[in-house]
Amino acid sequence: MRTVNIGILGCGNVGGGLVGLLAEQRADIAARTGLDLRVARVAVRSVAKSRDVELDTELLTTDPAAVVTDPGIDVVVETIGGIEPARELVLAAITAGKPVVTANKELLANHGAELYAAAARADVDLLFEAAVAGAIPLMRPLRESLIGEPITRVMGIVNGTTNYILTQMAEHGASYHDALAEAQSLGYAERDPTADVEGYDAGAKAAIIASVAFGVSVVAGDVYHEGISAITEADIAFAGRLGYVVKLLAIAELVDKAEVAVRVHPAMVPSSHPLASVRDSFNAVFVEGGAVGDLMFYGRGAGGRPTASAVLGDLIDAAANLDRGGAVLGDLPRASIRSIDELESAFYLSLDVVDQPGVLATVAAEFGRHDVSIRSMEQEGLGTDARLIFITHPAREADVQATLAALAHLDVVGRVGSLLRVIGE
Amino acid sequence: MRTVNIGILGCGNVGGGLVGLLAEQRADIAARTGLDLRVARVAVRSVAKSRDVELDTELLTTDPAAVVTDPGIDVVVETIGGIEPARELVLAAITAGKPVVTANKELLANHGAELYAAAARADVDLLFEAAVAGAIPLMRPLRESLIGEPITRVMGIVNGTTNYILTQMAEHGASYHDALAEAQSLGYAERDPTADVEGYDAGAKAAIIASVAFGVSVVAGDVYHEGISAITEADIAFAGRLGYVVKLLAIAELVDKAEVAVRVHPAMVPSSHPLASVRDSFNAVFVEGGAVGDLMFYGRGAGGRPTASAVLGDLIDAAANLDRGGAVLGDLPRASIRSIDELESAFYLSLDVVDQPGVLATVAAEFGRHDVSIRSMEQEGLGTDARLIFITHPAREADVQATLAALAHLDVVGRVGSLLRVIGE
Repeated sequence: MRTVNIGILGCGNVGGGLVGLLAEQRADIAARTGLDLRVARVAVRSVAKSRDVELDTELLTTDPAAVVTDPGIDVVVETIGGIEPARELVLAAITAGKPVVTANKELLANHGAELYAAAARADVDLLFEAAVAGAIPLMRPLRESLIGEPITRVMGIVNGTTNYILTQMAEHGASYHDALAEAQSLGYAERDPTADVEGYDAGAKAAIIASVAFGVSVVAGDVYHEGISAITEADIAFAGRLGYVVKLLAIAELVDKAEVAVRVHPAMVPSSHPLASVRDSFNAVFVEGGAVGDLMFYGRGAGGRPTASAVLGDLIDAAANLDRGGAVLGDLPRASIRSIDELESAFYLSLDVVDQPGVLATVAAEFGRHDVSIRSMEQEGLGTDARLIFITHPAREADVQATLAALAHLDVVGRVGSLLRVIGE
Repeated sequence: MRTVNIGILGCGNVGGGLVGLLAEQRADIAARTGLDLRVARVAVRSVAKSRDVELDTELLTTDPAAVVTDPGIDVVVETIGGIEPARELVLAAITAGKPVVTANKELLANHGAELYAAAARADVDLLFEAAVAGAIPLMRPLRESLIGEPITRVMGIVNGTTNYILTQMAEHGASYHDALAEAQSLGYAERDPTADVEGYDAGAKAAIIASVAFGVSVVAGDVYHEGISAITEADIAFAGRLGYVVKLLAIAELVDKAEVAVRVHPAMVPSSHPLASVRDSFNAVFVEGGAVGDLMFYGRGAGGRPTASAVLGDLIDAAANLDRGGAVLGDLPRASIRSIDELESAFYLSLDVVDQPGVLATVAAEFGRHDVSIRSMEQEGLGTDARLIFITHPAREADVQATLAALAHLDVVGRVGSLLRVIGE
């Protein structure tokens, strides 16, 4: 039996969840692994604050820097979130030769390469399963099981809040605003939901996924993102009639074997696609490989206990690995990023138009002028409610955007509505 | 760069697929891992046979025993299948201190404990990701990511042939025999389909899953199994009307924290359950954990290249691990098995009956006499085609079986039809 002393930074949702899980599972884990995982220090903002988990107050400290440099600490778990001081603390722990487990997507999406390189130099583990898609084992399969696999695309539903909202809209005909309000009342969405609904959260996760899947450094700023706040019930209902569901997807692709395209946007997914059946606040990540074919990983993307469970898996790994040295990503070359303008897909587009003869010809001419070929068109409503809905053949993003800009200037077009890319056909 | 010499036993679908993948990926893998994976020897039945993969005939031998004891071989990959001589060869390799990668479910389901224990004694890896659910990373997540997780149930669609047949029946109204014939013509089913359709293949995989998930030795003979050959189009159509799909499930459960129940049988799964959307020949495994919540792993369960991809992931792991010693299951205590008789679930039952007054009362009385409570009943058809369809409340298996036996003796009952357990509600 080997005692491993754990230093935990932060004791909120995830850190507190980990303390609770360790209290429940410590004996079982020791029996199975020969590792006695002992919570040795916990850095918190306030020692006096009351907590859900039982924790000897003597273990608490308000000085996280003292935890990471304490020679009695074997492994550091970072759950405070945000960039600073998390970045400095993680670097200090690594430099002191301690493996680090973190659930901090923002830190990794912005400073991942620096941290992976530092961990490789110090030959210690830096593990972060919980940072992407919460409880779902994804980072380890990508890093280990699929290391020999030429992965071409990873795409997923990695934000539970928006998936909950879109599910409510699709299954109960709720409006975006009502579904958001319900998500807020259930605690799935923050009072300021921007990070979720505008795709920033998913974008950070997409950057981490792309880095691990393709072995290059991708940062949050490389990721194109659009959110779901402009999606209407009508878009979702129309998609449903055509056999699609609308999902907010994070997509990381290898293009021409050298460039990486990473984006987050709502998309129409065929209802027979495995991602289409991912409902409510669940997450799922779909992986396409050259030999392995299609894989999907499904589970809880958030929540204290599920996320703490992912941290615990990493923690056991890091503890078992203490004498072996690190198994980390190493020095990642900077990715070469392909702009979304150069990507192709089919598009769904709705346009409010004046209901008069010749409108379709005028509108169709703009598509043709920009090399965008129309697969199907349908008119909904009459008179002032007339709306044209188009599905295009696969077309270049830049051409479609130019078409939209030109359409917006036509007198017969009242409003350019939602634009949704069609993915997974 | 380190050269790792690989000895491969067998060069069929999976072994040949691995040789092909290594030819494609060797340089990339070397760049990413520092390991040069060199195919050093391949044991085949006939050297003269023509093969799809390019392979220097000097590497071929008809003596597999010489490969496993060759001191120049660093890692052995066993893809010959079946129990003997695979068992002796794997044991010989382990005893010679070589890590082994195998895709052999039959061997592990019958002699796993002996092999895991031998690997632990020799301190070498014995990896078998490809043995269960082909390309899907499942064994590694169970062994590593979820090692700290109290797993309560693992259930999955682990046989692609039967899932293809059931999908054809559900989506195209095909009969069992037509769907089986189609699966055979596509190469999904063998000419003698017994191992697939009667649940033996899924049962072997269930035994391996139970052993890894619960850390106890479960063998194929411990697994209760029923196949799909008695399922009718009418059962599937009726299930569909009630909001269920019929799937052949392999289920491994921890009961009362000490006993394990492992079974394979067709089941009615609610259509909103993630397993319900797994179509055609795809596999998926659903994991329920105390902290992690529900997880699902989805992908290709068979096929040369997908399975070879899983073998390759293990091979890279074993090669990277050569200097570190094994990370294996160790000595597994024999499982304490709970009989299916003692398990509870809701049941679907169809009965051909004589269409006359009082029949339902007679039949219902038998249910009540055996403590089985009826949730819903529906009569289909009239006269000689009259059929009663029951859904029960959760009931003990033994009580339901006793009810069935009693019903079969009633004069008003013509035939006791399908019995399906309702799972995942």
